[in-house]
Amino acid sequence: MDVLISEVGPRDGLQNVAPVMTLAAKKAWIEAAVAAGVREIEVGSFVPASILPQLADTAALVAWAVQIPGLTVAALVPNYRGAVDAVAAGAHKITLPLSCSETHSLANLRRTHAQVLEEARRIASMIAALPKTQRPHFEGSLSTAFGCTLEGAVPRAKVAALAEALMEAGCDEVGLADTTGYADPSAVRGMIGAIQTALGAQALTGIHLHNTRGLGLANVLAAYEAGLRTFDSSLGGMGGCPFAPGASGNIVTEDLVFMFEAMGISTGIDLNALFKVRKIVADALPDVPLYGFVAQAGLPLRFVPATHHSGAMLP
Amino acid sequence: MDVLISEVGPRDGLQNVAPVMTLAAKKAWIEAAVAAGVREIEVGSFVPASILPQLADTAALVAWAVQIPGLTVAALVPNYRGAVDAVAAGAHKITLPLSCSETHSLANLRRTHAQVLEEARRIASMIAALPKTQRPHFEGSLSTAFGCTLEGAVPRAKVAALAEALMEAGCDEVGLADTTGYADPSAVRGMIGAIQTALGAQALTGIHLHNTRGLGLANVLAAYEAGLRTFDSSLGGMGGCPFAPGASGNIVTEDLVFMFEAMGISTGIDLNALFKVRKIVADALPDVPLYGFVAQAGLPLRFVPATHHSGAMLP
Repeated sequence: MDVLISEVGPRDGLQNVAPVMTLAAKKAWIEAAVAAGVREIEVGSFVPASILPQLADTAALVAWAVQIPGLTVAALVPNYRGAVDAVAAGAHKITLPLSCSETHSLANLRRTHAQVLEEARRIASMIAALPKTQRPHFEGSLSTAFGCTLEGAVPRAKVAALAEALMEAGCDEVGLADTTGYADPSAVRGMIGAIQTALGAQALTGIHLHNTRGLGLANVLAAYEAGLRTFDSSLGGMGGCPFAPGASGNIVTEDLVFMFEAMGISTGIDLNALFKVRKIVADALPDVPLYGFVAQAGLPLRFVPATHHSGAMLP
Repeated sequence: MDVLISEVGPRDGLQNVAPVMTLAAKKAWIEAAVAAGVREIEVGSFVPASILPQLADTAALVAWAVQIPGLTVAALVPNYRGAVDAVAAGAHKITLPLSCSETHSLANLRRTHAQVLEEARRIASMIAALPKTQRPHFEGSLSTAFGCTLEGAVPRAKVAALAEALMEAGCDEVGLADTTGYADPSAVRGMIGAIQTALGAQALTGIHLHNTRGLGLANVLAAYEAGLRTFDSSLGGMGGCPFAPGASGNIVTEDLVFMFEAMGISTGIDLNALFKVRKIVADALPDVPLYGFVAQAGLPLRFVPATHHSGAMLP
């Protein structure tokens, strides 16, 4: 496997659609995704059910999913309280978003940068006090890193400084997120370079890109060439950012996997099996539109993917 | 201007939609595109009106458009007969397609490779006999270069050999065309490298990519990085290839221009003016769907394009 596709649909997708998917349907989705070769899934967010009823069963889903061999179970945590719940459920990876635009941070998390960094420190201390085998991987996600619908462009130096602050607060890693779909390939390259210069290559390996303005896969290509190897995407392109007006559209997992596989870069994911996952989700959410090109156009005739495997390829 | 966007909508777009656009509407489209900064437009195809009634006014349109200062007027010619008509109308650039998949060539042009190359030779002789100032630029377009829905992948060496044959037949330049949407960034880089190694960089400067499987702009990025500077696209993504089953979807001019402008690569085209062109075309073809992300999402807040100009920027 040359790259890791981190499926965020069960969190980022479902939190942005009106219908509440049942726990059973979520499990069916996750099982089918794992059978297709998906190795990391963000299954939910530890937010109050009053805010996101679609994700109210996140603790139960995490506790179930961590029993699947070979799957990294990730969850979003908005704060210390969420991190405690995520650890209790057994999440392998927790992600705390810090919005580089402070205006967006106040709108999205109702917190200043200083307050989010304080949460990061408390979470890191809590994790450090755990037995080593129970410690989740702790990522600080730099959201709106490429600009914000409320502030416009965010200076690169500011993003790099916030990345440093997150690492100092105790994160294991930072991630870049183009929450608003403002990124372009040059900006992606420049931002990755700036952060890796400041923090070293091991501090930044993943990116969460959107396709709001159609540049999603071009931005992935630029990030791959800049050395990143973990890419978030959402089945059928579900989701986006609900608090950024006008922004929408995650990268479509099917199209992302197709691009890499066509390039000879192995994702470990079987495309035809992924189309079946799409069918499962479409059946469970009949009123929710699914996006994506390759699922509609089909694979090229006699397509040879980089990943060859039969069946589930569970380790 | 760092890159040349060659608008193919009036040819490739209109030949794939059912309604016939009036000559007046085509002129309004072209005038608005030029005012937005578009510098090359493929305005039509010299095919019999019985085959493509949508393009029956190509000769009149070429004769009118060549009077617009600063605009390169291009036209597709399927054969010698079409080339003679294109020259008579005064086209600046003529493009003869040669489908690298011979199966597709027979289906699309009803000709073998040998027959198309013979047409190329006749066209080149005809052009050579013209006074220098009346000679159009003669491009041989390698269609289905990245694969074909009838044959599957086309070997790179075969495409390079056909490129050499077209240059030997007297073309000024060859172009690559991903008629079926089979290309990926690695294939684009590899194919450009193979042809430029065989023929030199000056023999290949442009590419016609589709967005059938969502990789259109990623492929553009790869082609740009490999040194190409001319990119075909269609307003609103209209068109594709009618003879390749299941294939559809040109690159959207608006999204392509946005990507380059965001990257600091000047296209000479004003995006807000381009959105007005889109409106003109949408009004003229109310039943034809227009695609594209940036026209829907809008420009990022306080977006700074690479191209700054006021008004038409006519030379």
